[in-house]
Amino acid sequence: MSRKILVTGFDPFGGELVNPAFEAVRLLPDEIAGVSVVKLEIPTVFTRSAKIVEETMDRERPDFVLCIGQAGGRSAITVEKVAINLAEARIPDNDGEQPCDAPLRADGDTAYFASLPVKAMVKNINDHGIPAFLSYTAGTYVCNAIMYNVLYLIDRKFPSAKGGFIHVPYAVEQGVGKPNGTPVMEIATMAKAIECAIETAVTVDMDASDIMGETH
Amino acid sequence: MSRKILVTGFDPFGGELVNPAFEAVRLLPDEIAGVSVVKLEIPTVFTRSAKIVEETMDRERPDFVLCIGQAGGRSAITVEKVAINLAEARIPDNDGEQPCDAPLRADGDTAYFASLPVKAMVKNINDHGIPAFLSYTAGTYVCNAIMYNVLYLIDRKFPSAKGGFIHVPYAVEQGVGKPNGTPVMEIATMAKAIECAIETAVTVDMDASDIMGETH
Amino acid sequence: MSRKILVTGFDPFGGELVNPAFEAVRLLPDEIAGVSVVKLEIPTVFTRSAKIVEETMDRERPDFVLCIGQAGGRSAITVEKVAINLAEARIPDNDGEQPCDAPLRADGDTAYFASLPVKAMVKNINDHGIPAFLSYTAGTYVCNAIMYNVLYLIDRKFPSAKGGFIHVPYAVEQGVGKPNGTPVMEIATMAKAIECAIETAVTVDMDASDIMGETH
Amino acid sequence: MSRKILVTGFDPFGGELVNPAFEAVRLLPDEIAGVSVVKLEIPTVFTRSAKIVEETMDRERPDFVLCIGQAGGRSAITVEKVAINLAEARIPDNDGEQPCDAPLRADGDTAYFASLPVKAMVKNINDHGIPAFLSYTAGTYVCNAIMYNVLYLIDRKFPSAKGGFIHVPYAVEQGVGKPNGTPVMEIATMAKAIECAIETAVTVDMDASDIMGETH
Repeated sequence: MSRKILVTGFDPFGGELVNPAFEAVRLLPDEIAGVSVVKLEIPTVFTRSAKIVEETMDRERPDFVLCIGQAGGRSAITVEKVAINLAEARIPDNDGEQPCDAPLRADGDTAYFASLPVKAMVKNINDHGIPAFLSYTAGTYVCNAIMYNVLYLIDRKFPSAKGGFIHVPYAVEQGVGKPNGTPVMEIATMAKAIECAIETAVTVDMDASDIMGETH
Repeated sequence: MSRKILVTGFDPFGGELVNPAFEAVRLLPDEIAGVSVVKLEIPTVFTRSAKIVEETMDRERPDFVLCIGQAGGRSAITVEKVAINLAEARIPDNDGEQPCDAPLRADGDTAYFASLPVKAMVKNINDHGIPAFLSYTAGTYVCNAIMYNVLYLIDRKFPSAKGGFIHVPYAVEQGVGKPNGTPVMEIATMAKAIECAIETAVTVDMDASDIMGETH
Repeated sequence: MSRKILVTGFDPFGGELVNPAFEAVRLLPDEIAGVSVVKLEIPTVFTRSAKIVEETMDRERPDFVLCIGQAGGRSAITVEKVAINLAEARIPDNDGEQPCDAPLRADGDTAYFASLPVKAMVKNINDHGIPAFLSYTAGTYVCNAIMYNVLYLIDRKFPSAKGGFIHVPYAVEQGVGKPNGTPVMEIATMAKAIECAIETAVTVDMDASDIMGETH
Repeated sequence: MSRKILVTGFDPFGGELVNPAFEAVRLLPDEIAGVSVVKLEIPTVFTRSAKIVEETMDRERPDFVLCIGQAGGRSAITVEKVAINLAEARIPDNDGEQPCDAPLRADGDTAYFASLPVKAMVKNINDHGIPAFLSYTAGTYVCNAIMYNVLYLIDRKFPSAKGGFIHVPYAVEQGVGKPNGTPVMEIATMAKAIECAIETAVTVDMDASDIMGETH
């Protein structure tokens, strides 16, 4: 039986008409490097997104889980290294929840590192001509929350799976009306980058050893 | 006889392997709004670029001249309002010229405003879902120089023509290896934006009256 | 009789409680390099600011005029090279004027270059440990307007005077509540930079020949 | 016996002649809100900095530990929320160590949250007119390492102490020669901000409940 990767993308939030995260996921092929791609649109909601992903993991038993979210203002594809046990929402989510300085899981670790080969994923995206960086903060909103929840679930319930998260910039059309200097990216470019990342995620066991650290 | 627009784009410079300016021009259709599009790649050279454009204007007698250049680091399409009579090159051009605080034309005005309907062009690009802004500086390198030279030539020799300049961001692949935060754009997106701008340039006489000023 | 420099700074605008421009001018000594410093607060108003400066130039007959304004969002002291014959206001000025794509002087040149030794001023500020750059756009608001008007008046009426303009960042306290990433500067640091600039302006005839151009 | 706060700052690294972190610490008063301030310059070295801080904690038994480091490129004072169990150095430290994707403590948690009232500290700095933000990444270099080590030591060995970390921007003079747009801050302003932060750290038990989260 073929292996599976669950790829999620959020629905629009914060007054935007589109969320490039799921739009990019929608463009992915149904199979990458021999692995079946299960696509799932999830709500930009702290509580429900985690439940839906858990139910889907129960049903689909994916070997890999990769969640995609929008980080408006970033210029490049960013592969996240770490998720923290913290929910702090500058704006209410799509169900009106607005947690403040709250743990995501009372019994969870303070943080989890992504278990996918994040550096190799960054490298493969760059090798295909799309700027990508490793990031050490997934924020404190629903993106960090779903990444944290997936890694928590993997730790507790699905130990053979691997998980990770990728942030994408604003789509080109979202840039209209935003301040000069706001970077944008075509959704098709994001999809190509995510495909590169998945190809690496499902074929590489040992992460790359390139230096991708910060100097502060 | 149909009207003509001359659209120029520079060749690569500064160690880059590609210049998205002419790559985008290359993708333009041969006719926009009934106007023939004459495409011309020009060297990133202060002196020769002006000569080649003048010779081409002599031969082709275009009704419009629109020059395209790269402004690495800008996030959006920027339509330039003004060119100044100044050459100051931080790096040598492709012929090794590196003018410093030098006038471009001893007998030219201190500056010329673009004679194309710049605000309407910005607006039409935005209306097609691509971020664009009006810019009040075309720099001091070969981009400003060709814009200045075209407007000088129009002023002195081709009074029935109209001229302008558009800056494009780095292409996506140019972003690889540049610092995190460097905005990029697909060349096809640039081409679509330039096509929108040309459509407006050749059909609109009176510029839009939207406010596009600065607050300093 | 000793020589004189007129140094102007705008009053607060755009909802800000303070304008660091005049606050910095206020901190200047009354004499710099043997030249008397005449300090003048001017309104952030297109029409009246020009009248007040002209009246003061009539009365004081300064050898030099240096105007200071705020460019919120810039990180460094920027010495302006050029002012353009254009008024375009994103927000109304303090008298409610909001010109759009209007010339400042019907009979003026399209632009004037600063007649002060701008590169040497930048260099001297940097040499005193404060970041400074040459800028090729003074915007399209009241800052550009007063710079343009001063250079127009010098051209037409006060040919022995020299004029220029310096933009300063937001003051530190203005940064509170603004988006993360907004650069700020202490007003005392701005005053020190302006003093360095004036010292150069009144003692240097031939500008420096350092390269300070752009690469686009 | 009066309570004590240990405040550390790093020495210069990465080719800089000065590190504003310890320069700012040096300017602090010897007592803040009745609490003695113990100042310590520590080397920008992964291994030795942790040892020196542990020895000093053994000797001084501080009630609070606040470490200060430089985050060149940030515009504001940033109070860090979380330190991660990861060392990844883009450049070698001052002893030539350059760890890559290595845990800081084999037996440590994946991350620790600061135990000081970080939001109240941010708020008090802002209330004193200096821009400050909460940050959710302390990087992966020596700054994150010392913050992690201090919180690890508090967790294991000094349970009655509280710890945290503050990043400061480049000092003004460090901005000279750096790219236009690089934010800077006076060292005296940093010192004032750190003093505000300490005043809060030593007097506030319950953190503020202001929303300081991200929207991605």
